[in-house]
Amino acid sequence: MAKILTKRAENYSQWYNDLVIKADLAENSAVRGSMVIKPYGYSIWEKMQAALDKMFKDTGHSNAYFPLFIPKSFFSKEASHVDGFAKECAVVTHYRLKNDENGKGIVVDPDAKLEEELIVRPTSETIIWNTYKNWIQSYRDLPILVNQWANVVRWEMRTRLFLRTAEFLWQEGHTAHATKDEALKETEQMINIYADFAENWMGVPVIKGYKSENERFAGAIDTYSIEALMQDGKALQSGTSHFLGQNFAKAFDVKFTDKNGKLDYVWATSWGVSTRLMGALIMAHSDDNGLVLPPKLAPIQVVIVPIYKGSEQLEAIAEKAEIIKKKLQDKGISVKFDDRDTYKPGWKFAEYELKGVPVRIALGPRDIENNSLEVARRDTLKKEIISQEGIEDYIDNLLSEIQQNIYQKAFNFRKENTFKADTYEEFKDIVKNNGGFVLAHWDGTSETEQKIKNETKATIRCIPFDAEEEEGKCIYSGKPSKRRVLFAKAY
Amino acid sequence: MAKILTKRAENYSQWYNDLVIKADLAENSAVRGSMVIKPYGYSIWEKMQAALDKMFKDTGHSNAYFPLFIPKSFFSKEASHVDGFAKECAVVTHYRLKNDENGKGIVVDPDAKLEEELIVRPTSETIIWNTYKNWIQSYRDLPILVNQWANVVRWEMRTRLFLRTAEFLWQEGHTAHATKDEALKETEQMINIYADFAENWMGVPVIKGYKSENERFAGAIDTYSIEALMQDGKALQSGTSHFLGQNFAKAFDVKFTDKNGKLDYVWATSWGVSTRLMGALIMAHSDDNGLVLPPKLAPIQVVIVPIYKGSEQLEAIAEKAEIIKKKLQDKGISVKFDDRDTYKPGWKFAEYELKGVPVRIALGPRDIENNSLEVARRDTLKKEIISQEGIEDYIDNLLSEIQQNIYQKAFNFRKENTFKADTYEEFKDIVKNNGGFVLAHWDGTSETEQKIKNETKATIRCIPFDAEEEEGKCIYSGKPSKRRVLFAKAY
Repeated sequence: MAKILTKRAENYSQWYNDLVIKADLAENSAVRGSMVIKPYGYSIWEKMQAALDKMFKDTGHSNAYFPLFIPKSFFSKEASHVDGFAKECAVVTHYRLKNDENGKGIVVDPDAKLEEELIVRPTSETIIWNTYKNWIQSYRDLPILVNQWANVVRWEMRTRLFLRTAEFLWQEGHTAHATKDEALKETEQMINIYADFAENWMGVPVIKGYKSENERFAGAIDTYSIEALMQDGKALQSGTSHFLGQNFAKAFDVKFTDKNGKLDYVWATSWGVSTRLMGALIMAHSDDNGLVLPPKLAPIQVVIVPIYKGSEQLEAIAEKAEIIKKKLQDKGISVKFDDRDTYKPGWKFAEYELKGVPVRIALGPRDIENNSLEVARRDTLKKEIISQEGIEDYIDNLLSEIQQNIYQKAFNFRKENTFKADTYEEFKDIVKNNGGFVLAHWDGTSETEQKIKNETKATIRCIPFDAEEEEGKCIYSGKPSKRRVLFAKAY
Repeated sequence: MAKILTKRAENYSQWYNDLVIKADLAENSAVRGSMVIKPYGYSIWEKMQAALDKMFKDTGHSNAYFPLFIPKSFFSKEASHVDGFAKECAVVTHYRLKNDENGKGIVVDPDAKLEEELIVRPTSETIIWNTYKNWIQSYRDLPILVNQWANVVRWEMRTRLFLRTAEFLWQEGHTAHATKDEALKETEQMINIYADFAENWMGVPVIKGYKSENERFAGAIDTYSIEALMQDGKALQSGTSHFLGQNFAKAFDVKFTDKNGKLDYVWATSWGVSTRLMGALIMAHSDDNGLVLPPKLAPIQVVIVPIYKGSEQLEAIAEKAEIIKKKLQDKGISVKFDDRDTYKPGWKFAEYELKGVPVRIALGPRDIENNSLEVARRDTLKKEIISQEGIEDYIDNLLSEIQQNIYQKAFNFRKENTFKADTYEEFKDIVKNNGGFVLAHWDGTSETEQKIKNETKATIRCIPFDAEEEEGKCIYSGKPSKRRVLFAKAY
């Protein structure tokens, strides 16, 4: 096996980078901060997209597409949005190149300067609300429940594959409502959908909660997020849903006439998840042998590897393998039979371990005699010899078991790494020496939050929806607090 | 009905614009040349994407994602590619905005100038072949069969919704092969897939052929295209597949070791279709009442409209409608029951005609009594009263019949509007006074092609694959020619 990974215990960060590259998920491109998502990585993302897209459509949303470019002036219209998004971004200033007169190849044509610069969208609230203005006159035009799958660009200085890249892929939902209550319900519905997806598809347990003011989306009244815990004890924000109030409707003058003929501003939400989820998926489950994929998102769920000497043996095994493959496919299981003679079985075993294929079946001459086969689970690395009889039901159950086990393992890890801290000393000790989630009292001020961040690098991930009412004192200021909030160092 | 369209006979171009807007397919955005694809239009595009994506995957292709931005210098590497693509394009020169010191809002930060400008991709050959360089060492790494669904930007001066926009959505396949023969087969396979899709999904008959040198993709050895005929007698190029030879492999130095240890450059193809197909779909079939959609691409295949007075009648009809809806859905048919009380039946009829819903069912109190319903076909506008008994089989057959009829109608139109011209006078007369496809002899030179274009606006759409060998004389120069080529004015 040539593709050895750095061990997690040695250097978690290097392990992650190694894994993303060696499992053929993504790689850095020639363009600073932009990644190439390789076919294997992209096929996982496609599975995520399909599941999410169905969830969106089942709750009444439709997809649409809005322009990549946003006029610079649009960003100035929503006061707090401009500071959050119109800073580090890609700016289009010209629309033509020409051959250099001095023979220096192609250069920007100074005559083709745009009157107003265009910003490559970092998020689309402004262009979408500028569009909604023309779509909405009456309550009959509401609600608008639209989602967009798109690429966005935020000029990041320090980038990491999937976790933070200048260009990334995401979906952004943008909804418009007649009432505040309806918009709030939508905001909540979408964070619940994200949590459902994270837990039941990705196998990643998450904590749902409110963002503090500091961490809120620029232009939102309230931001809800789901927070996951990675194996190195750092949190990863995995999805956000924003209640935007009437901020964008006011900025773009979007009013509607209600049933009683009264004119009012429209209520808004927006919500998104991105290719960052790939980072969460990789970091939550994988091990020193490579990727561990939950079966529901694995492009290949079962691989069959033949163990043979010579073409005669291979033929007999191939015949059997094709029968097994067919049986599994009839159950809706995706199967690959890898009969390449350019690689040895040991190489293939390592390769599919690296790529996180949930179940590996090995089939040799003895199995043909005994009507048996060897089944290896990626999640536990356990192997057993079983009968070929009823293999399709066995594998079907096994895939469900693996899906469940992966979630349970992550859930147990989170449980073991979630702490309560009642003093700042305790807090600092946990953050520094163990990591993980820390539940602690906080006085509710941005000032305290900022100081804790500066001193410990831990931030408030969220104020959990299910936080118990509990009288306490802020670990930093000693001021009264009514509930614990969730701290962690974060990606 | 408020949404009346300009008639085709009056002003075909205005009819098209009206239709795109009024059927809620797309609209112009605040950004010059960029469109907004509205939910209804996008849902048709999604159906196209799904069908094409399956065809690509069934032939062994995988999706991947490459950067939006391409370093300017990449375009200079393939000599003919640079002239074709690195001219009218969006150029990113800066990566930051800042607050203006004189309080004039946000301005481009002059300190954040990029060392090398980035081009928003007009097509991705260069960035992809720069990436493939690292993926390919040996014959074992080949073929690479990759497709990308993405947005691209070409700075167009005169834009039209779907047909020509600065930003558009497309797929671009980029494959790498060990032999010339394999690459040629791929090029041919993909144009066949496009033709299959156009004819069997879109109901649009197409002519497959070679592009002349003038019309070839910049950087290709050979370009194959499919050409469709619109109702105004103009052609619309609907898909292209390019044999790139070793041009891009040489430009980006991509070599591989073959089975015998010999080093050679890799062979390439690329192929694409775009949201332009939406334009073809709209223009090929629609009429003065609105859109006519082939059932296979219709987001709503059947709409049920209740005809009632008062809530009691509506209740009885709704009960029946839900039963019918369920029966149809069980057959895999997409159905909408429109029980909105904010609109009258006549308004709804016009609305669904405008939106091209293939089958409309009207259900009134008399139908409840008689166990009947009224079925209206969008393609022929014919109505009939039929029994509710066995309605699901009836509709299922009807949808197939409509799909077939739409194709046949377009096929007949093309047949009636395809001409042979043997003299230049005849040729000019047809092009000017009738339009349509004109098969004529051509001497094979770019010079003649250019002159005919300048004088008549007609261009060579393609040299049909199935053109018969036939001795003749070029209509323009009188020089000998071995086969007729296909001329037309084109979008």
